Amino acid sequence: MKEWQKGIREVIPYTPGEQPRFDKMIKLNTNENPYPPSPKVGEALRNIDVDKQRLYPDFAGTELIEALSKVYDVPKECIFFGIGSDDVLSMAFLTFFNTGKPILFPDITYSFYDVWAGLYKIPFKALPLDEDFRLVKEDYYSEKNPNGGVVIANPNAPTSIAESADFIEDIIKHNQDSVVIVDEAYVDFGGESVLPLIKKYDNLLVVRTFSKSRSMAGMRIGYAFGNAELIKALNDVKYSFNSYTLNMTAIATGAASALDEEYFEKTCRKIIATREEYKEKLKKLGFYVLDSKTNFLFASPRGAKFDSNRAEETRKLFEALKKENIFVRYFNKPRINEFLRITIGTPEQMETFIKFIENYINV
Amino acid sequence: MKEWQKGIREVIPYTPGEQPRFDKMIKLNTNENPYPPSPKVGEALRNIDVDKQRLYPDFAGTELIEALSKVYDVPKECIFFGIGSDDVLSMAFLTFFNTGKPILFPDITYSFYDVWAGLYKIPFKALPLDEDFRLVKEDYYSEKNPNGGVVIANPNAPTSIAESADFIEDIIKHNQDSVVIVDEAYVDFGGESVLPLIKKYDNLLVVRTFSKSRSMAGMRIGYAFGNAELIKALNDVKYSFNSYTLNMTAIATGAASALDEEYFEKTCRKIIATREEYKEKLKKLGFYVLDSKTNFLFASPRGAKFDSNRAEETRKLFEALKKENIFVRYFNKPRINEFLRITIGTPEQMETFIKFIENYINV
Repeated sequence: MKEWQKGIREVIPYTPGEQPRFDKMIKLNTNENPYPPSPKVGEALRNIDVDKQRLYPDFAGTELIEALSKVYDVPKECIFFGIGSDDVLSMAFLTFFNTGKPILFPDITYSFYDVWAGLYKIPFKALPLDEDFRLVKEDYYSEKNPNGGVVIANPNAPTSIAESADFIEDIIKHNQDSVVIVDEAYVDFGGESVLPLIKKYDNLLVVRTFSKSRSMAGMRIGYAFGNAELIKALNDVKYSFNSYTLNMTAIATGAASALDEEYFEKTCRKIIATREEYKEKLKKLGFYVLDSKTNFLFASPRGAKFDSNRAEETRKLFEALKKENIFVRYFNKPRINEFLRITIGTPEQMETFIKFIENYINV
Repeated sequence: MKEWQKGIREVIPYTPGEQPRFDKMIKLNTNENPYPPSPKVGEALRNIDVDKQRLYPDFAGTELIEALSKVYDVPKECIFFGIGSDDVLSMAFLTFFNTGKPILFPDITYSFYDVWAGLYKIPFKALPLDEDFRLVKEDYYSEKNPNGGVVIANPNAPTSIAESADFIEDIIKHNQDSVVIVDEAYVDFGGESVLPLIKKYDNLLVVRTFSKSRSMAGMRIGYAFGNAELIKALNDVKYSFNSYTLNMTAIATGAASALDEEYFEKTCRKIIATREEYKEKLKKLGFYVLDSKTNFLFASPRGAKFDSNRAEETRKLFEALKKENIFVRYFNKPRINEFLRITIGTPEQMETFIKFIENYINV
């Protein structure tokens, strides 16, 4: 080893979900939206004054902030944005979790929480979900687990399960001394948002993304709501090392998407309808399917073919799907290695998927 | 103070250069390019398949990497990219400077170096430039200043001065045990690049940006060249906490810009010609002007009006310019508070600027 190599930061590189790119594949593996973004997004992109690219973007993202403020009825100073919700969440970890006390999140949840904790040297406790993959809310009470912060994805991923706003509020109520982050990446598909609670709890940060419900994963836009003081703290940290983040096109197209509420609601409704339909179909084929409020299903195959060694047989099904160019997600991790995570595609894609499953089971 | 507020990270928020936005101003304060980006950039933007925004961007940025590889004749595995060179530099600090030994950079240089060092808790030594604002290369020899890394902006900012490639190589030669970052944000305006040296020194990282010479500040694209092992280390760290950075439009337009070499060279030549012309004009008006190899001039007013209290009189000139909607940059910092940093605009803008100066001096 050369001397300079000793200074390299040691990391466990994350393996992103496969991003195969060829025609005729059915891509149900990274929770992307099967429908295009609002037509207003294309319009906004075509209307961009390319010559203005020579200038730095508006670092305050005024156009985007104003659109979000209008649509969600939240004051502008209560809105933060970043390059995808990953950037927003990472910035929130860096900004708020500096007490030295452990932060709390579930053992099964979005896989980056422990990564950011590691990156910023924040101690954490991963609290087990119960046997039905539900949060045990008392575990999060600060009197039971004194903490430096709480992070909850609601609906949760990859389980797809949502808890009620009352349930989440109870956790917030029991954590008034640390910042509580509620990651609502999937909330638009039927979850109950705690957004109204930011007026009541000044330590609540609600994080959202354009990547799922707004069909804009390719543009990398995330945002967050919280009381003005939380947002100021986030911006202070952000500006302290990088003032310019979202580029011109992201600001303009993000604003256009936010303002097209009709298209947004229509798309979400379509995905919810498809989800419910194929949840029933999977159940009829004997699958154990969690009650999803997201744009994906978390489903475990059951029956003769699977019951002897369910983890191994599930993995085989995953591989068999892949051979047919149907990509879903399989997590080779304790407790969830008997499940497939299936993003909701178009009805046509889902029909091809379910037909394959039918055949696979019956052969 | 509430309990949760005690967990907030303490920072000194950075104040970005003013971004006034109104018509008829002359904006020479943030080193933006006065010319629009290549027409190919507009084309690329118009050709984007908006529907594909529903998918995550290509996290490897293949299109952009291939374009840079072709244009700069560097293997693809030797190229890294990020959201502006700020993101690239910050990631390099995080990746390479983990020995606990101080890193070295000049006392007068890009103002974010000490900020990132602070953010990542990297000790540093800021070594004084000499009286003529030149690097004292022996100060950077590892035998004189044992270090965990070296960061040099060449040409330097805000001084505008470039050192030769041989001069920089001598510093690299004396630092084979730590990573040496050469920040070439301004190199396209007449500096000598050390890019060819990445084959010779496996610890050399050369950082560039699309914000200045490629007129694409609004798109936030930075990149770096180094041996494949350095680049792999950067990507490992990047992927370990955020796999998706540049959005679709940045990848596509960046590639288009890189491939239009003719337009790029023409624009750089125009800016260099304007710079030389107005450097002479400022000198004729008695200014002390450093020898710029960048798209800005670092100039100190001299003469009866200024000589009694040059720092104060320079600041007054800065304010007087601002009143006329001519924005330049003034740094209220020791050693450089007698200078203005003037971005090179179009000849028309520079003419308005110089006419104002003439009048100001002679009144």
